[in-house]
Amino acid sequence: MSGSRTEISSLGEFGLIDHLTQNIELQNASSVLGVGDDAAVIDHFGKQTVISTDLLIEGVHFDLMYTPLKHLGYKSVVVNLSDIYAMNATPTQITLSIGISNRFSLEALDEFYEGVYAACEKYGVDLVGGDTTSSQKGFIISITAIGEVAPDKFVKRSTAQKGDLICVSGYLGSAYVGLLFLEREKKIFMESPGVQPDLEGESYVIGRLLKPEARKDIVEFLAQSEITPTAMMDVSDGLSSEVLHICKQSGLGCVLYEEKIPVAEQMRQAAYKFEIDPTACALSGGEDYELVFTIPQDQHEKLVLNEEISVIGYMTESEQGANIITKGGSKYPITAQGWNHLK
Amino acid sequence: MSGSRTEISSLGEFGLIDHLTQNIELQNASSVLGVGDDAAVIDHFGKQTVISTDLLIEGVHFDLMYTPLKHLGYKSVVVNLSDIYAMNATPTQITLSIGISNRFSLEALDEFYEGVYAACEKYGVDLVGGDTTSSQKGFIISITAIGEVAPDKFVKRSTAQKGDLICVSGYLGSAYVGLLFLEREKKIFMESPGVQPDLEGESYVIGRLLKPEARKDIVEFLAQSEITPTAMMDVSDGLSSEVLHICKQSGLGCVLYEEKIPVAEQMRQAAYKFEIDPTACALSGGEDYELVFTIPQDQHEKLVLNEEISVIGYMTESEQGANIITKGGSKYPITAQGWNHLK
Repeated sequence: MSGSRTEISSLGEFGLIDHLTQNIELQNASSVLGVGDDAAVIDHFGKQTVISTDLLIEGVHFDLMYTPLKHLGYKSVVVNLSDIYAMNATPTQITLSIGISNRFSLEALDEFYEGVYAACEKYGVDLVGGDTTSSQKGFIISITAIGEVAPDKFVKRSTAQKGDLICVSGYLGSAYVGLLFLEREKKIFMESPGVQPDLEGESYVIGRLLKPEARKDIVEFLAQSEITPTAMMDVSDGLSSEVLHICKQSGLGCVLYEEKIPVAEQMRQAAYKFEIDPTACALSGGEDYELVFTIPQDQHEKLVLNEEISVIGYMTESEQGANIITKGGSKYPITAQGWNHLK
Repeated sequence: MSGSRTEISSLGEFGLIDHLTQNIELQNASSVLGVGDDAAVIDHFGKQTVISTDLLIEGVHFDLMYTPLKHLGYKSVVVNLSDIYAMNATPTQITLSIGISNRFSLEALDEFYEGVYAACEKYGVDLVGGDTTSSQKGFIISITAIGEVAPDKFVKRSTAQKGDLICVSGYLGSAYVGLLFLEREKKIFMESPGVQPDLEGESYVIGRLLKPEARKDIVEFLAQSEITPTAMMDVSDGLSSEVLHICKQSGLGCVLYEEKIPVAEQMRQAAYKFEIDPTACALSGGEDYELVFTIPQDQHEKLVLNEEISVIGYMTESEQGANIITKGGSKYPITAQGWNHLK
């Protein structure tokens, strides 16, 4: 970034779209027609098309005070792709609409798109369309992701079976603790603008918040290992909330074991600095974008050697409810305390 | 609508989604999986998938002071479907994301969705997904429409040929004049809140603004008549702007005849009340959602009997520029003065 500032109004809407999309090279053979017409055209002969959409609003979903625009662009794409992977599908295209106020310069928007294109390249998806408009207040991002899956190989939330093992990828709760650090430093900065932020040593948890990845590798591993999950979701609101969705939609209960819930050592140390329970962060913190899925017990040996996957419990009859067994051996009902933007 | 008010926060995010989507019945066989999972699944075997997306922001694209929520819901869907028809495709699904502030009641949101579902039913599309979140300010609507088209039968903007006839459906400019009336009455109301709005006799132009329709019938007529347009767009920004897009993207020029541009008599009378030129409204007013398309000259006889289609000019070499011949016989270059939300 140079320090220069170009007013977006100097380009006009179509000039802006040309500028932002000039370097697009379509990667997928299924992307027949991309940006620049009334609509994009996609060719998924012999596959099923999977569609997911997210609306991200400044001040609700992100805070530009501590979110670099490039990271925001990257994350906006990744959270949508995560939904496609959560269907056991492969993302192939996205559309991106943005609403911007005139406080944004062209250079700022370029930074955002740098992140968008970085994510598109990493995950092999094409940006094929969108809409660019002004907003009266704040930055608004709407992304729709399109993917493909072999006929009827998609995995829903409602098809877990009694006795299935509940598995989760990676580590949980880190993004939430990263948010606590950034909110703390923002508060200090607002009160004393001269003070430099103190985020030393917390790059892991902050990185999990600002630059999450979608678990493409897990979906590929499941395919290679010939494991078809019976149900799957991504962890965006928090493990508790997602597991309760699977229970409710599958008409089942579950048991989770606290000691089995994967927590990164950096997150554990960071949580202690806020005097909060790492398990609570893992259960109720959101935005981890890990995958939680269920598999029949007889598939267990196929994934036991994958260190990125933890078995954390199993599905039960509905009557038994959804419970967690603590390290001390006590049993508590699981409650959804995920991020609820409407509260 | 009863006069009651239910706070949206009393339902929570998932309760709200359940409420808004409880009556969905999928109409298209290609809608394999709808609302309620990480993503929707669509089956378009043997067809190409067409995708279009729009972001609509309160205060930029619509004014709730004179836009009934039911009409807004209807129009939000229609403007997206119009883009799909403009590709010579058939819309089959939409996703809808909304951002709402807490000044919205559940009853207000229900009204909006009534309009959404009315449009879905009329055009035979399924609502298959979306996102619901809070906004800090204003109502935000993001719709993505998905459609299907026989392989390589989609129609781009860039493929008009020299000598092709330029055709347009319906009447142009009415929505813009409808907007002038509503803006005038709003201004009067803001200055003297006791004064009742005077929109007597202007229901045609106001209806064209508040409840536009997409030209499904024209696309069906073209298919039945075995006419494949060489280029096509919908008129959202204004005829001038759209024709210039076709010229630029096709590398051609054009000639339009003012006397051939279809203008409704109600619009002409209404424009005179504002002392503005009806032709200027037709050229530069937007939001008509008519279709403008080009056809080879030898296809002309196939559409000459369709009163909903007017031939307004023809494509020329690029060097001749884009011009309009006035009723008085003068020739002027066409300039884009469509609605530019970024200005």
